[in-house]
Amino acid sequence: MANSPSGESVLERADRILAAFTAEEPRLTGAGIAARAGLPPATAHRLVREMARRGWLDRVEGGRYVVGTRLWELANRSSRELGLAQAARPFMGDIHAVLRQHVQLGIVEGREVLLVERLSHPRAVPVRSAVAGRLPLHLSATGLVLLAHAPEEFRESYLEGPLPALTELSPTDPGVLAEELARIRVAGHALQTGYLETDTAGIAVPVRGRGEQVVAGLGVITPAGDPAARAGAIVQALHTAAHGIRRTLRETRRDTAG
Amino acid sequence: MANSPSGESVLERADRILAAFTAEEPRLTGAGIAARAGLPPATAHRLVREMARRGWLDRVEGGRYVVGTRLWELANRSSRELGLAQAARPFMGDIHAVLRQHVQLGIVEGREVLLVERLSHPRAVPVRSAVAGRLPLHLSATGLVLLAHAPEEFRESYLEGPLPALTELSPTDPGVLAEELARIRVAGHALQTGYLETDTAGIAVPVRGRGEQVVAGLGVITPAGDPAARAGAIVQALHTAAHGIRRTLRETRRDTAG
Repeated sequence: MANSPSGESVLERADRILAAFTAEEPRLTGAGIAARAGLPPATAHRLVREMARRGWLDRVEGGRYVVGTRLWELANRSSRELGLAQAARPFMGDIHAVLRQHVQLGIVEGREVLLVERLSHPRAVPVRSAVAGRLPLHLSATGLVLLAHAPEEFRESYLEGPLPALTELSPTDPGVLAEELARIRVAGHALQTGYLETDTAGIAVPVRGRGEQVVAGLGVITPAGDPAARAGAIVQALHTAAHGIRRTLRETRRDTAG
Repeated sequence: MANSPSGESVLERADRILAAFTAEEPRLTGAGIAARAGLPPATAHRLVREMARRGWLDRVEGGRYVVGTRLWELANRSSRELGLAQAARPFMGDIHAVLRQHVQLGIVEGREVLLVERLSHPRAVPVRSAVAGRLPLHLSATGLVLLAHAPEEFRESYLEGPLPALTELSPTDPGVLAEELARIRVAGHALQTGYLETDTAGIAVPVRGRGEQVVAGLGVITPAGDPAARAGAIVQALHTAAHGIRRTLRETRRDTAG
């Protein structure tokens, strides 16, 4: 693999350039890319130009760059993430129509939950995450349900930390968190209030794939003050949707169960 | 840029490897990747392993590879395509709820329309395209409306061909197609019957971005036998949705009008 003097491969540098673009900063100048990617300007510029030639980056007004349409196409057309999102969307739509809150679908990526689909209601409680956004697994209900059903070695390594906190209610004690994960496995759903934002709560259930393995978490975000009696109805709606998603995954050819 | 003996860069080879994966064949062996990408097996294997280390490819059961979750994340989290799709989705949902047919949103990519969003109804007429799939611009209503509003030089170069046909009804005469594009600009919508598949018809309108430029085409696919009287109502619904999408694009921070 062609390496730079620092031993980095071209792909590693391209990865760092792509990682410089975020939902908050989707348009960057060549100099901005170099700074964020931590690359020498000449190296960054050369690689940015080559990526732009391939359509991995697109040049827009003001000489800025955005992540390219060709890369979007390459990453999506065969992706398990898109297949999963499309299988889930009609069922998420049903929940959304009834509850009028955010409904989201997440998968495990490293120590975080990566949101692959979200349906939002204009008047739903505002939340910080977005599609293709990430959150630490132990801070959202969708992440907790994934963590609870992850392989034991992964769970143990996760509990060793770090366990970042976003509010005073975020769980940071590994022992307390381990007990909560055990309760989630028994109950079949996760419920958190204020772990992520003081004024929101989350409820989530596991989505199984073709086999018994959990391939995603399906969750609803509600205002923290929502009556507890409503939680039972939400859990029931989520389980019904998770069942429908699983049936669709079994019926479709596209591999989504990784 | 580090080049192989054949003069190809690492990125070009990585692009060919990613392009080997399709919606129909989302899981490939190392040998399958090499064959489809037209790369020597040793070269392909080395690069595939490096891509797998970065998460650009993920290894699944049977030693096969799929396009990686990290690449999906990098390509989506700041993408104009996702921003556009998310802005459009609620309005597409409204149309979908009323018409119960496929509703799709496409952008120009080369000589083709790239579908960035699709809402499908289980009982809608079956169609050949999928999200992140492509069709020649002149064969779908969504593509025709984009072609009609493309810059004049692009349109002229497009008309020089090739103009592939998929059915006996597909337009292949540049003069006839040029007249049709002029009619579309005057009428404000495109309507095709049987260009793509003999038993489906399409109706589409342009979606404008923050300025006056057309950033997407919004279309509905219906059975070819649908009464012509219905077309007027569909066009009206599409224009209303396109207006709503434009308003949302103007109100959101994320750049989608690139």
